[in-house]
This record gives sequence, structure tokens and C-alpha cells, in this order.
Amino acid sequence: MPPHRPIDYPDAKPDVRAVFDDIKRTRQIEDVNNFWKYLAHDPATLKRTWESIKEIMAPGALDARTKEMVYLAVSVTNGCAYCIASHGAAARKAGMSEAMFGELMAVVGMANETNRLANGYRVPIDPGFEK
Amino acid sequence: MPPHRPIDYPDAKPDVRAVFDDIKRTRQIEDVNNFWKYLAHDPATLKRTWESIKEIMAPGALDARTKEMVYLAVSVTNGCAYCIASHGAAARKAGMSEAMFGELMAVVGMANETNRLANGYRVPIDPGFEK
Amino acid sequence: MPPHRPIDYPDAKPDVRAVFDDIKRTRQIEDVNNFWKYLAHDPATLKRTWESIKEIMAPGALDARTKEMVYLAVSVTNGCAYCIASHGAAARKAGMSEAMFGELMAVVGMANETNRLANGYRVPIDPGFEK
Amino acid sequence: MPPHRPIDYPDAKPDVRAVFDDIKRTRQIEDVNNFWKYLAHDPATLKRTWESIKEIMAPGALDARTKEMVYLAVSVTNGCAYCIASHGAAARKAGMSEAMFGELMAVVGMANETNRLANGYRVPIDPGFEK
Amino acid sequence: MPPHRPIDYPDAKPDVRAVFDDIKRTRQIEDVNNFWKYLAHDPATLKRTWESIKEIMAPGALDARTKEMVYLAVSVTNGCAYCIASHGAAARKAGMSEAMFGELMAVVGMANETNRLANGYRVPIDPGFEK
Amino acid sequence: MPPHRPIDYPDAKPDVRAVFDDIKRTRQIEDVNNFWKYLAHDPATLKRTWESIKEIMAPGALDARTKEMVYLAVSVTNGCAYCIASHGAAARKAGMSEAMFGELMAVVGMANETNRLANGYRVPIDPGFEK
Repeated sequence: MPPHRPIDYPDAKPDVRAVFDDIKRTRQIEDVNNFWKYLAHDPATLKRTWESIKEIMAPGALDARTKEMVYLAVSVTNGCAYCIASHGAAARKAGMSEAMFGELMAVVGMANETNRLANGYRVPIDPGFEK
Repeated sequence: MPPHRPIDYPDAKPDVRAVFDDIKRTRQIEDVNNFWKYLAHDPATLKRTWESIKEIMAPGALDARTKEMVYLAVSVTNGCAYCIASHGAAARKAGMSEAMFGELMAVVGMANETNRLANGYRVPIDPGFEK
Repeated sequence: MPPHRPIDYPDAKPDVRAVFDDIKRTRQIEDVNNFWKYLAHDPATLKRTWESIKEIMAPGALDARTKEMVYLAVSVTNGCAYCIASHGAAARKAGMSEAMFGELMAVVGMANETNRLANGYRVPIDPGFEK
Repeated sequence: MPPHRPIDYPDAKPDVRAVFDDIKRTRQIEDVNNFWKYLAHDPATLKRTWESIKEIMAPGALDARTKEMVYLAVSVTNGCAYCIASHGAAARKAGMSEAMFGELMAVVGMANETNRLANGYRVPIDPGFEK
Repeated sequence: MPPHRPIDYPDAKPDVRAVFDDIKRTRQIEDVNNFWKYLAHDPATLKRTWESIKEIMAPGALDARTKEMVYLAVSVTNGCAYCIASHGAAARKAGMSEAMFGELMAVVGMANETNRLANGYRVPIDPGFEK
Repeated sequence: MPPHRPIDYPDAKPDVRAVFDDIKRTRQIEDVNNFWKYLAHDPATLKRTWESIKEIMAPGALDARTKEMVYLAVSVTNGCAYCIASHGAAARKAGMSEAMFGELMAVVGMANETNRLANGYRVPIDPGFEK
């Protein structure tokens, strides 16, 4: 059995098209990314994932740029190549400068390092953090 | 052989005390956290880690609050209990509100989910991300 | 020094051939996958890994399809591209339908999300889970 | 600032109570787990997460027991202590026997091992997996 | 249903006792660790895991101390508290000094950092590494 | 916005060239690897990372070969393709034989397996490990 292939708009069923239309309208783009064209194989997951992302990534207490940078930080930590490319592009579109990217990577790298130092030295939580 | 124990200031050698003094001065605190008291078993790592963190976490293109939130996002992704407690406290001290924390967790959760959806559906990178 | 290359049957030593023969016989296939041809560089690991997998993946309290789907879920979580391809193929061969795959990915994505929400909110274990 | 505390039903606002009520009704339980009482600090995430889980975990092409076992497999791989306890309990409630648990752990352990063997030997994907 | 409990020697069935006996004889210890007492719930996994570990951890091209330090490095990276405690103790018993532990942690921390810098900057593999 | 491109020596600013020169001198090589050419986009991170690595990877209580093998073990666990290629090459250059590599992978695989068995069976730490 072959791996999945993208489902493009002309081949999509009405429920998938409705989601694609909403993505395009919300993001003001002409076509959806591969991520959505692959999720289209499971219309329930496509719809739920899009609606969750639309709600979560809308500016709120945090602005859109910060949210995309956090998304990128997680994707870099997990080593998801697709997500690094897509959210790297999205973060830049939302205003992440080259200097911001450099500092973001520095923080992500350092956090991954000190997470392991804390593990290895088995450091107990300071009572002061809990007040 | 027992696990490590914290090295407190009175028991610390001069090179460790010098780092502790700089941490207290820089952060305007009366005592250093357990993390530093455990790293003190290896003065070279203590010094290098502190100097790296001092450089990386200073406000630059990104403000201190954003950096602490990214640090927290990575620590949550890796499941480092100590780091979640310490950087959760630091992020709050740097101005992270309860609403910001909620949105941060929502983004971290969603990123961890879609990282796996992209893996599982084996989604190829869109050429448009590379321009 | 170059990366490893696959060791094919004609070039394999007797102890490796014996494992290859058992894999082919057990799985009713004409040639072994790359995974085994690379492990063949370390005949002890080849033999131990195959014997463990043969024992573990045989139907028991869980059927073969469920086992392959669990294998796939772990591989997706870890982001192992080779393992996603190989166990995706194996799961399908064992009867995983497209609908099952979609639901599997939905569960894997959600578990990766809520694992981090539980981490970030530092949720204590309910006493009720322990009875 | 202290860590989060659970929000119990009597202290919950109407939008949180509505979710709690739906969880209790759907699962036929008298009180919700800590996970929901902590998410209640962010009612939007509480509602979205519950509705996603309700949709995803309902029996479909996969039965409820298989879904809970996959959830447990991911949680074990990520080392999320809360999730291992909660989904371990849920899987058992859904019919996972001790023998099934043993086989599940064996598969999860083996998958985590071979994921790294495939990484380390840099095994290329077999063309046969793609047909 | 309660979590697992350790199975002690007097309560163990013959097949479990046989493995316990071999562990005690091989390691020259009076009682087995909790890890084995918990795996005893699944005698097949107990036996297979012990036989694999006995084969893998025996001195060969790498000495026992190096092997235990690598085991510890992986456990620290994954954040497995039990494994950090047990393999930390085993590494020390095999001769890991405090200075070695400090350098080991420094390498583990740095590797976890640069793994993410390589991910985030999407660094392509140098042709020179492949010769 | 396109992904990053390597910064080669002729195009590098003085602060970057100074680091490149030190890398080449220390490692006795004619050109630096891609990793450094990409980090060159952020000279502060380039300098800090190189100085940390130079300090950490120098022979001390642990020899260079052991350090490179630990680096490789972490990179394999995290699935970082670039780091596996670069530190695999470095470990071999530092004397890792094919037999050592085979045993290293066997330990890494087994550690990743038993980390999850310990998680899943929720094994408590033996008091004996703490003495």
C-alpha cells in the first residue's frame, strides 16, 4: 500500500472543501499547505485540527508572532522537519526577524541542555518556586 | 554512593562562590537556586552554564518574558519537572499573566499534536516555505 | 569513513544468513528489509533483535494488527521516518484500514498534546487511579 | 506565585461547570479527574480539549480499548507520569487484561529500541514500503 | 485496579525465580532490583530483557564502565528518573568518578543543545562525513 | 523568506572568521563543517557554542573517543540526522571501531527500551541506589 498523497481542492469532497475554504479565507491565501491536503484523508481530524489551530493561534494575551515562535521552539525540540519549515515560515511572516530567530534558537538550545543537567543531577524543586 | 547534595555558599570553594556572587548580583536575589548548588559539583560546568544563560536570557531582540516563556515551552515538551517549576516561576516574575500561561500551554499542546500528525502522514515540505 | 551499507544475502556470513532465512521463513517473504541488512553488521544484535521481535510481535493476548498499530504509534511519537514507513506498511498488511489509521493518528496526536498539558499544569495523580 | 490548584465543581464558573457536567454524563462518573480541574483555569482549553477527546476516543473503526492502549503507549514513550496513571486506569476499565498490558509494554519497549537502531544505522526506507 | 507491586522471591513462580537466580549469580548481589521485581509480572519480558541486558552489558569492545555511562546518558536525555538512579549507581560501581560524571553530564547537555541548533538551522549533512 | 544558507569564510565578518580560524587551528582541518557555517548567522551563538564545545570535548577525566560516543548516543536517541552523521564521523576519527559502534548502538537501543519499561511499570527507585 502506497504512502498518502495530497488531496487537492478539485478532488476534495464538500466537507473537506468547506475546511479548505475557511483556511484560505482566514489566512488570506490562495491554496492550503500540504499539511491540510494530507489531513484531508480524515475529514474529522482535518476539521477538528483546523478549528483548534484557528482558535489557539488567534492573537489574544499573546500576539501571533510570539505564538508562532513558541510553535517553532516546540517543533525544533521534537525535530519535526515539516513543522520547522512551516512554522519557521509562518513566524517570519508574522514578523520574526533574523535576530529574533537567532535568540530563539539560543534559548531553545540552552533549555534542552539545562533540562538534561537538571535531570542528571536530580535537582529537587526549590520551595521558593512554589510560593 | 549517594546522590548529589546541594553545595551551599559557606561550603563552596572560591571559584564556585564567584559564580554564586555573580548570579545573586545579576538577579538581585539573596540565594541561588538548587540548580546552581548542584552544578557546583563541577565548577567548570557551573561557570560555563551560568555565563551562557546570562548572555542568552538578557533582553535583546526578544524581551525577557518571551524568552522565559520559550524556555518553559521547551521544558514542558521535554517533561522536565524541575525546569517547569523554575522557569514557570521565572516567567511569571517576568510578567507572564495567567491568561498568557493558558495560551502558551495551548500552543505547546497543539504543536506537540501536529508535530506527530505531520510525522504520521509523512507530509512533504511545501516548496512555498522555501522561498 | 563512509556510512554503513546493506549486507545482502550473497555477501552474508553463515550466522547472518541463518537469521535472514528465519525472517524470510517466518514472514513468508522473499527478501529481508533494509533494517535487517544494516543490523547484519553486528550479528549478535541482528540475532537478538530478530528473536525478540519474533517473540513480541507474535499474536497473543493482543492480535498482530493491534501490535503493529502500537509500534506505529510509538514510531510516530519519536519521529523515526524509517520505522513509520516500515511499520505503517506492516500495519496495513496486518489489516489496518484507512479509517483505522486516521483514528490511530488522531489518538497519537491527542495523547502527545495532553501529555504536555498535564506536564505544564503539573497535575497530580488522582488517588482514584491507584485503587 | 504558587502552582495551580484544582478548581472543584462548587468553585467553578458556569462555562466550566457545563464541561464538567458533560464529562460526568458521558463517562458516567461522579466527579471529574484532576486533569480537568486543572485545565479549568483556561475554560477555552478545557472545552476544546474535552470536545476533541470525546470525539477522538469514541469507538469507531477502532474500539475504545485499543484507543486507550495506544494512548498509554504514547504516554509511556513520553514518560508522562500523570498520563500513564490515568490512561493505564482507563485502559484497564475498558478491558485491558494484565496479559494485554504485558504485551503492550513489550511492544512499546521494542519500538523505542528499534527506532534508535534505525536512526543509528541510518537505514534508508525500502522501496517496497512505498508501493 | 491498583498499580503494579513488586514480586519478591518468595512469591515468585519457578520461571521468575530462575531469572532472579541468574541475575543474583551474575551480578553477585543478594537481591534483585525493583526493575526486575516489576517485570516479573510478565515472565517472558523478564527473561528476554535480562538475557538481552546480560549479553549487551558484558565487557566486549567497550568496557563495562563506558557502557554504563552511555546507558546513563540515554536515560538522562529521556528523563527516566528510575533509570538515572539505577544506572547512575551502576556506573559509579563500575568506576565512574565524580569528575567523569561531571564531564559526562557536560557532553550530554551540549549534545542535547546542538541537536536542536542543527534542527533549527536545518543544517545539511557535509559530504565529507560520508567518505 | 528562504531557509538559511551557509556562510563561507570569504563572506564572513571578522568576528565569525576569528571563530572559524580557531576551529580550524584546534581541529587541524582546512574548512569548518556546515554546522558552524549556519551558526555564523548568529555570531554570539557561534562563539559561545564553539567555546563550550572546545572546553567540553577536550580530553579530561574522559578521553575524546568516549566523549564522541556519548555525543553520538544522545544524537541517536533524539533522532538528529545531522548530528548522527557528524558525531559518527568524529567518533570514528577518534578511534571508534566497527565493533565499538555495534556495542554502542546495542546499549543505546536497550536503554531506550528499558527507560519505557521502567516508565510503564512505574518502578519506584530502590533505596539501595541512594546510599
